[in-house]
Amino acid sequence: MKTPVTVLGLGAMGTALAQAFLAAGHPTTVWNRTPGRSPELTDAVRASTVAEAVAASPLVIVCLLVDTTVHDALEGVDLTGKVIANLTNSTPDQARALEATLAGATYLDGGIMAVPAMIGGPHAFILYSGDSAAFERHQADLAVLARPLYVGADAGLAALYDIALLSAMYGMFGGAEHALALMHSAKIPAVEFTEQLLVPWLTAMLGSLPRIAADLDNPSQAAAAGSNLAMQAAAFHNLIDTAVAQGVDPSLLTPMGELLQKAVATGHGDEDMAATIRLLKTNV
Amino acid sequence: MKTPVTVLGLGAMGTALAQAFLAAGHPTTVWNRTPGRSPELTDAVRASTVAEAVAASPLVIVCLLVDTTVHDALEGVDLTGKVIANLTNSTPDQARALEATLAGATYLDGGIMAVPAMIGGPHAFILYSGDSAAFERHQADLAVLARPLYVGADAGLAALYDIALLSAMYGMFGGAEHALALMHSAKIPAVEFTEQLLVPWLTAMLGSLPRIAADLDNPSQAAAAGSNLAMQAAAFHNLIDTAVAQGVDPSLLTPMGELLQKAVATGHGDEDMAATIRLLKTNV
Repeated sequence: MKTPVTVLGLGAMGTALAQAFLAAGHPTTVWNRTPGRSPELTDAVRASTVAEAVAASPLVIVCLLVDTTVHDALEGVDLTGKVIANLTNSTPDQARALEATLAGATYLDGGIMAVPAMIGGPHAFILYSGDSAAFERHQADLAVLARPLYVGADAGLAALYDIALLSAMYGMFGGAEHALALMHSAKIPAVEFTEQLLVPWLTAMLGSLPRIAADLDNPSQAAAAGSNLAMQAAAFHNLIDTAVAQGVDPSLLTPMGELLQKAVATGHGDEDMAATIRLLKTNV
Repeated sequence: MKTPVTVLGLGAMGTALAQAFLAAGHPTTVWNRTPGRSPELTDAVRASTVAEAVAASPLVIVCLLVDTTVHDALEGVDLTGKVIANLTNSTPDQARALEATLAGATYLDGGIMAVPAMIGGPHAFILYSGDSAAFERHQADLAVLARPLYVGADAGLAALYDIALLSAMYGMFGGAEHALALMHSAKIPAVEFTEQLLVPWLTAMLGSLPRIAADLDNPSQAAAAGSNLAMQAAAFHNLIDTAVAQGVDPSLLTPMGELLQKAVATGHGDEDMAATIRLLKTNV
């Protein structure tokens, strides 16, 4: 028999997780604060309390709204011997603090790198950190949801990786939004620009990230490969001036211009992007 | 015989352009303000004045430091009958203003989407705008440098596309820099994270841009496909909190958080990213 699993929380994501378990033949118990949610989960056992839901399975998936909701739901519940895999959005510190409160249970923290529609499909992955033995024991069960990637024993690591990837995504979307606002300001169709220029260009530029990462891991004395930070800082005002001239708010771009200026002002003008990454660290 | 060409400016990019013309067998005349630059261009004819350089060829490529350098160099020079292809970094307004001063010449403005090492290779492209007949006449000559893409008769368009793509690139790099600073703060090697997670993740997320562009071109009443702007705005503080807790300056991300808040405050919470693009337009 497949491992019985419990899913706490039937929002869009929790419902998708429960559906994936059911589709793979796992006996699945669900609980939601408001009863009756997600009637499409006809094969799930519905528990009326968290305690009843937790008691039903050795593996408990938690997918609630925010960190405080998780604390509220689990308070006073006997978790002895359970593996709690918390996939609720949280920060590294929240994950570590939650782990410390779970007496008798082993803890896995997870960061879901997917939207609900991608769960159970080939492109989703979930980052896990925390108890490595629990991860190994349930890796095949968790693989039903999305490709599981274990990133370390510190419970906060999955959230750190998750948030790093989300931050990078928002940076990329911010740049793309600014670019599309410029096109929109000139009444140029966005789809053709996006498909024929923007996506291929950004895909090509992604190719330079491994070199920048290598320079961050092992600072070299080599000269900048493309244009150095001083050249970039000098040219950056063209980007701001153009946005303003086109009636586009330059706010999403201005901090990068300031970071380039700071790099030049602190003596890094002849260096490459890795220098700006070091400048972002405020505690050095 | 191949079209004789002139290159004004022998910085790293101008030198790469002249080399590509020479390698393709074009009689190539070069000029630089400081004589003797780029001695490796042994087959080039060196002109001692701009006037002499311009007189030598029907197609004149301009690749100088900034827009004012171009005006200074061309002032008082007889350009009658010449095609001036200006590849100097400039704004749309600067391109239009320069075109207006070039009596007797036809003007092409170009935006080089490449670093010098990519010139003459398969991945570089150059955006052109301005006189379409001049572009068609010299398209094969220009293809020696990089794939030429004509974007319209308005001389400012190449710079607009160029700056839109550069703006998007800086957004993406900013997000990646923030992500790498988070990893660096936890002493996690950057290369493995970048190659195995960051680049594949951003590549996958690029796939959502065409849908956002389509929504910008044709606003739909459909609900947001993933998490809507209100959900994103509510979760965004986790990104900022984590950066601060890790000792990473959140400046590159904060404007996106403010934009999401603004979208919610102005009634767009149930919409998708295209709504934030419209909010960037300040002149509506």
